[in-house]
Amino acid sequence: MSPGRFPATMPAVVFDGRLKLITDHPVPVTPPGWALIRTLVAGICRTDLEIIAGYMGFNGILGHEFVGEVQACDQPDWIGRRVTGEINAACGQCRMCREGLERHCPERSVLGILNLDGCMAGYCLLPIANLHPIPAGMHTDRAVFIEPFSAACEILDQVPLKGTEKIAVLGDGRLGILCAWVLASVVDNVTLVGRHHAKLQAARWRSLETTTRLLDAAGADLVVEATGKPQGMLDAMAVCRPRGTIVLKSTLASQGELNLAPVVINEITVIGSRCGLFKTGIARLQQFPDIPLERLITAKYPLEKAQAAFERAHSSEALKILLEIR
Amino acid sequence: MSPGRFPATMPAVVFDGRLKLITDHPVPVTPPGWALIRTLVAGICRTDLEIIAGYMGFNGILGHEFVGEVQACDQPDWIGRRVTGEINAACGQCRMCREGLERHCPERSVLGILNLDGCMAGYCLLPIANLHPIPAGMHTDRAVFIEPFSAACEILDQVPLKGTEKIAVLGDGRLGILCAWVLASVVDNVTLVGRHHAKLQAARWRSLETTTRLLDAAGADLVVEATGKPQGMLDAMAVCRPRGTIVLKSTLASQGELNLAPVVINEITVIGSRCGLFKTGIARLQQFPDIPLERLITAKYPLEKAQAAFERAHSSEALKILLEIR
Repeated sequence: MSPGRFPATMPAVVFDGRLKLITDHPVPVTPPGWALIRTLVAGICRTDLEIIAGYMGFNGILGHEFVGEVQACDQPDWIGRRVTGEINAACGQCRMCREGLERHCPERSVLGILNLDGCMAGYCLLPIANLHPIPAGMHTDRAVFIEPFSAACEILDQVPLKGTEKIAVLGDGRLGILCAWVLASVVDNVTLVGRHHAKLQAARWRSLETTTRLLDAAGADLVVEATGKPQGMLDAMAVCRPRGTIVLKSTLASQGELNLAPVVINEITVIGSRCGLFKTGIARLQQFPDIPLERLITAKYPLEKAQAAFERAHSSEALKILLEIR
Repeated sequence: MSPGRFPATMPAVVFDGRLKLITDHPVPVTPPGWALIRTLVAGICRTDLEIIAGYMGFNGILGHEFVGEVQACDQPDWIGRRVTGEINAACGQCRMCREGLERHCPERSVLGILNLDGCMAGYCLLPIANLHPIPAGMHTDRAVFIEPFSAACEILDQVPLKGTEKIAVLGDGRLGILCAWVLASVVDNVTLVGRHHAKLQAARWRSLETTTRLLDAAGADLVVEATGKPQGMLDAMAVCRPRGTIVLKSTLASQGELNLAPVVINEITVIGSRCGLFKTGIARLQQFPDIPLERLITAKYPLEKAQAAFERAHSSEALKILLEIR
């Protein structure tokens, strides 16, 4: 690679105890086996908001949801391709990696979350093995949802479903709606419980029911907790039937008081659920092209207005806020 | 039944915000389908200590672990038999009851825990359907462990085990040791983690390992949390491998701050586990007559010394404290 092909510096959204835009961050050097990706668009995720609240103690460039174009790597076929990438950079050697669970590699770094600069910048780095080409014909505004959509699909990998279950998804944010859509693609009786009429309206798809009344979820066989709020787990325990299952999606910087006695008394199974395989997510998106992902885009901001974009992402009416990098 | 056959009053250990011994509590009237049981011996369980700390908001006669003798019921075969009994008195009609999950009946009362006076008294009541005869030749000092031993056996019902797992049981109290014994009866690699050398010594059985070092449990496939302390769940999350399982046994009156982020990040499955079927527990006790239950008996007190017995049960060196009723 000729170092002259890229600018020496790039804009970057950095968190170092405070959120700031750095205009002259050095463009990183591409290690062997890695790809340098020019970011086209990046999504703001609740995890980013939690990081700013102290979650993971992360310092560096934020962002892990993106679509970009490969600019440099030692496998020339990739150059110029529109890609997204798995966010866990794993060792490839350990027991977890050998079992196909790279996202649980104890040596992993995680894009914009753990020991690896993220994608809210002119360029970012990922192992070539992490890259997924965006299928031809999939708009970048859909493709930027591959990461959170795959995380929603992870539920199907973890919980065997017959299709006859009563399912409740708590939380009408981006992740909650994505989980509800994924579940509604395989089960008829899915209810999304939220607080915001406009968001619930945006979530309507196929047989999915929406409600603001938690009681409508009472007796659910499966509850997905995606509120991103401490109250979410309390609500989930309240509506899950005895011997039912709660899938826990929210990661919080701080959860406050929590007593798990209802989990023991009702012998509930709680399953933590984080990242999913992009391959699965992309396949399901292609299988269900009518899933209305674009409805989730509340606004797009240029990277230079990241501060305003993060403020907007914090507001209760916001669904997905995108950053565009030019 | 002739009312003259029983005394009108009985001694009883009552909690009404304070723990007290009442010497002249009325002997209850036996409803149709129920049995009046003269208590011979009752065990003090951690749940009793939590109730005194406010758990469940229970008021009434304490106690749910017992061996007794049937004194009255409308099925004369039972009269005079030495029995113990399932502690959940269910409706027998609902979906849970029809599925054999009477212990999750939403209408249930629970002996000494929820809307039903317990067994720490001269007499107690249970539905005849709840009774289990004590096998001939099983000493009362063993039989009084059927309730907590069955609760330990519940883990085998909830978690499919191959036998090759690395298992850690946290907590060297009565329930932790019982869980460790049950698991060591089917899996070779079981480690009991505790803080008390004498208790760990008492726990040694077959291939069971004991340790005071939490780190010895690191990377466990299955962790049983039976510490009865808020720290227990934090320790369990720390040693459970990614995609591993935590069985939660402790019910606490208050748990304090708890952040479940590690459950999500490591995609851990948490399974709440409470009561087990006595049939299963009794069968396993007969299959493994060398399980040294008697070692768990720290002391026996007459019912009249219940206050002292409860104080002793609170002490860190105590395992099982029994109350004898004469």
